[in-house]
Amino acid sequence: MSPQDKEILKKRLYIIIFGTDTPAGKLFDLVLLALIGASVLVVLLESVKDLRDLYGFWFHVIEYLFTFVFTVEYILRIWISRKPWGYVKSFYGIIDLLSILPTYLAIIITSSQYLMVIRILRLMRVFRILKLARFMKESQTLWNSLKASRAKIAVFIFSVFMVAVIMGTLMYLIEGEEGGFTSIPRGIYWAIVTVTTVGFGDIHPATAVGQFFASILMVLGYGIIAIPTGLVSAEMAKNQNLSKDGTNDLLEKQHCNNCGKTSIEKDAEYCMKCGAKLPDRKE
Amino acid sequence: MSPQDKEILKKRLYIIIFGTDTPAGKLFDLVLLALIGASVLVVLLESVKDLRDLYGFWFHVIEYLFTFVFTVEYILRIWISRKPWGYVKSFYGIIDLLSILPTYLAIIITSSQYLMVIRILRLMRVFRILKLARFMKESQTLWNSLKASRAKIAVFIFSVFMVAVIMGTLMYLIEGEEGGFTSIPRGIYWAIVTVTTVGFGDIHPATAVGQFFASILMVLGYGIIAIPTGLVSAEMAKNQNLSKDGTNDLLEKQHCNNCGKTSIEKDAEYCMKCGAKLPDRKE
Amino acid sequence: MSPQDKEILKKRLYIIIFGTDTPAGKLFDLVLLALIGASVLVVLLESVKDLRDLYGFWFHVIEYLFTFVFTVEYILRIWISRKPWGYVKSFYGIIDLLSILPTYLAIIITSSQYLMVIRILRLMRVFRILKLARFMKESQTLWNSLKASRAKIAVFIFSVFMVAVIMGTLMYLIEGEEGGFTSIPRGIYWAIVTVTTVGFGDIHPATAVGQFFASILMVLGYGIIAIPTGLVSAEMAKNQNLSKDGTNDLLEKQHCNNCGKTSIEKDAEYCMKCGAKLPDRKE
Amino acid sequence: MSPQDKEILKKRLYIIIFGTDTPAGKLFDLVLLALIGASVLVVLLESVKDLRDLYGFWFHVIEYLFTFVFTVEYILRIWISRKPWGYVKSFYGIIDLLSILPTYLAIIITSSQYLMVIRILRLMRVFRILKLARFMKESQTLWNSLKASRAKIAVFIFSVFMVAVIMGTLMYLIEGEEGGFTSIPRGIYWAIVTVTTVGFGDIHPATAVGQFFASILMVLGYGIIAIPTGLVSAEMAKNQNLSKDGTNDLLEKQHCNNCGKTSIEKDAEYCMKCGAKLPDRKE
Repeated sequence: MSPQDKEILKKRLYIIIFGTDTPAGKLFDLVLLALIGASVLVVLLESVKDLRDLYGFWFHVIEYLFTFVFTVEYILRIWISRKPWGYVKSFYGIIDLLSILPTYLAIIITSSQYLMVIRILRLMRVFRILKLARFMKESQTLWNSLKASRAKIAVFIFSVFMVAVIMGTLMYLIEGEEGGFTSIPRGIYWAIVTVTTVGFGDIHPATAVGQFFASILMVLGYGIIAIPTGLVSAEMAKNQNLSKDGTNDLLEKQHCNNCGKTSIEKDAEYCMKCGAKLPDRKE
Repeated sequence: MSPQDKEILKKRLYIIIFGTDTPAGKLFDLVLLALIGASVLVVLLESVKDLRDLYGFWFHVIEYLFTFVFTVEYILRIWISRKPWGYVKSFYGIIDLLSILPTYLAIIITSSQYLMVIRILRLMRVFRILKLARFMKESQTLWNSLKASRAKIAVFIFSVFMVAVIMGTLMYLIEGEEGGFTSIPRGIYWAIVTVTTVGFGDIHPATAVGQFFASILMVLGYGIIAIPTGLVSAEMAKNQNLSKDGTNDLLEKQHCNNCGKTSIEKDAEYCMKCGAKLPDRKE
Repeated sequence: MSPQDKEILKKRLYIIIFGTDTPAGKLFDLVLLALIGASVLVVLLESVKDLRDLYGFWFHVIEYLFTFVFTVEYILRIWISRKPWGYVKSFYGIIDLLSILPTYLAIIITSSQYLMVIRILRLMRVFRILKLARFMKESQTLWNSLKASRAKIAVFIFSVFMVAVIMGTLMYLIEGEEGGFTSIPRGIYWAIVTVTTVGFGDIHPATAVGQFFASILMVLGYGIIAIPTGLVSAEMAKNQNLSKDGTNDLLEKQHCNNCGKTSIEKDAEYCMKCGAKLPDRKE
Repeated sequence: MSPQDKEILKKRLYIIIFGTDTPAGKLFDLVLLALIGASVLVVLLESVKDLRDLYGFWFHVIEYLFTFVFTVEYILRIWISRKPWGYVKSFYGIIDLLSILPTYLAIIITSSQYLMVIRILRLMRVFRILKLARFMKESQTLWNSLKASRAKIAVFIFSVFMVAVIMGTLMYLIEGEEGGFTSIPRGIYWAIVTVTTVGFGDIHPATAVGQFFASILMVLGYGIIAIPTGLVSAEMAKNQNLSKDGTNDLLEKQHCNNCGKTSIEKDAEYCMKCGAKLPDRKE
């Protein structure tokens, strides 16, 4: 194969693997999505003892198949990438590597159950595919609203934690060991279970005084959920107003197909992180 | 009966059964609502073993009565409908059929408990009656707000699912079989129970490390409920503003009495799906 | 006592008992608030078996005292009211009567535990006192927001109920009797416990399929809480805007001290329900 | 040491201990934050029986070290404060004293477990440090929104309490002693657990009627969470609008480094509570 043919092949593969606009690119994404879903399902089912005992061999066979396909994909991505090292070091590059590594390591290190579980991270690969779809814009809006209320949410979570520490300590004193509140950390765990309105019921107050304070904590937890909700609501309403005025240029952002970095510079032509060429604007 | 008399009878029945404006039409709707309620109640009560043993015979008698009435109604609806086939194929047509079919099938196939439960779908028939009331407009507003935030809600649910998969896997590794986390799917089930703040308590972390990660998951679940809430709030606030400006023509929509299809075309005279005549505008 | 003296006494008592602006009227309200609180506490404590066995006699003595005081107050209210019958028939008149009746009935009908519990309704009397304070305005705003979204909330609750019925039936089929889902009504109860994110854990799915559907129901319940929240948020934001423009005349409303009826007629001088004189405007 | 040297030393220490702008002041804050975190961790771990048995001696040694450092800090703060008495009497002065007192008292009064727990209040000291950071502004916004909806939230919590009392009493009558509803207060505790959607499951209805009323209570609790959320959302949206118009001068507030009092007077130069000099404006 001449170097020129190689260049043409690389270009074509690039459009298929990294691109999303051509029919071939779309098909590649769909097939990859299906493969990721199937491989995650295998990891889930393999963890069920009854199924492992019955179909353990077949799970291994399928697993090797998936790993082979993902390895080929990984090597192709490195080969065709204009900045191979930028891809390998990027978030998605690492996820791609973590998706295939455990199976190879399992050959060397036998009975490595904990290692195999890392394969569940394959699920994260779904984000790359979704990113290129219109869902990206939506999740960007969500993310921006969260980021804008970041400091407020931090204050809120810290306050909730403070309340949990103080109430957990109080319950440890009131209920004591019989009630299941054997230590302050357990009391704090119970307080978090209660204030977030989860309420497992594994530990619960047995004395009247304990139930009284628990009631206060519950009403508090029930009431203060309004705070993060109010924050995000107000932030989103503001975001919506901004985007109506045209001052919100969320849509103007560009995503690098190579490393996933988002750029807010409108006229950027190369990714500011890995140096790969950004896709052309469609205006 | 002459064909003309038949036509007149059909018209009159149409006004009573499909119409909602005449006193007779309203009475028919109320009676039907009561019959549906009563027949669903019978299905519920029949499933209680003690009551079935005691009043099983009477439940059957009442059941045959209801089925007879609903069958007559179904046949009438087909007969008087201007587009009988359009009605039979429509959503409500299928629900109407499913409401009566199980009782007839139970005569042929004996002891078909699972089949009989399908009758609970009769409850869906209530929607047709409510639809014609002013509740329709309200549920339309709700539905539009949800539809507008559809993509954002999908991203949110997918993220919650992702968190549940990763945390469930983590807890499976940390807690192991003794803690009730016997497999990754069970861990994911527990993570969903926890992140949605339901907290059954059938599975719950027993180790300190597990309780620590559970606490993080709970605070996360407690905090991120703010996101869908904020989304829908912002969307509804926007909808309200729109309807103030008169650009939101929700009220202009027409519902086909025959098949239930909603049309947004203002000057439509026939249903775009089954071809039945739409009711006159009341301007 | 001459009729004129009686008239003067009635007027003075009226200002104290029904009025809220004079120091004597404020003191009367505070004393009444304390008495109501204390009498409700006695009802609560009396229901605890250990305390009833120990202090049963004293609870009875205190109870007779409270009943005597409330009876005197009830008779005075009738006597001084300009429209006695209007007061007796009003919501607060009935609550006042229910607060004292059980104790008298208990003398005639012995061992009437169920009857005595009606006294807990004394708590409702607190509303009359609070009503006259500035809290009334706030609860009015809350109430209006709720009333404005009434139809939407009804649609929402009906939909939740529908989901609970269908999911409860489904779980009854899937889990069956062993899982605690012994009948459809129990399944519906479980579905409501789950969709509202309460999660008692008294009934919970044991099979994998059941846990899968339960997960869907939980995510649904977690997500749709956004709907009523969004509704009320949007409604409240609108209310606030209205009151800024001066088109919301909530503050203009008048409350009848005699029967509690709220009038929105600005220049009303007599209560439209019981005919009592309304307090003068303070403009 | 001459009085002048002493004055200079006091000034330098003041800048380090109370100040936050110089590198030394920032370092001091960070070290203090780490010390507080570590000392709270020791209190938590000491409450775990297994760890106490193993490392009890070392916990005591570390505890004495922390107490010594905090005591030196406390004495320095009094010494360098321009208004020592103002500092001692202030909220933070009392917290600082409560952080060191238990350890000294434990020397005199032996085996005073309950006393030692007071040291958990050291966590509150974190607020002083955070206050000087930009988080203060955010928590101020949160706090203002809450304060503005104070009366509405009070009405809401009182209503929830009312519902809990009435439903708790009802369940006590319906379920009785077998169901775990042994007294009205226990019934109220259960109603609060349910209406706040916590749902421990320690007490839960067993009869069909009880489950029916519990379902109503759950749907109610699930629905009315919308009210506080709506309140705070609307309030925050309003706050945001205000700050856009420049009428919200939250940023103009000054915090006294000596006693923690917040002043809204723009040109204040001395703290209005303890008389200490306020830091210069940075305009």
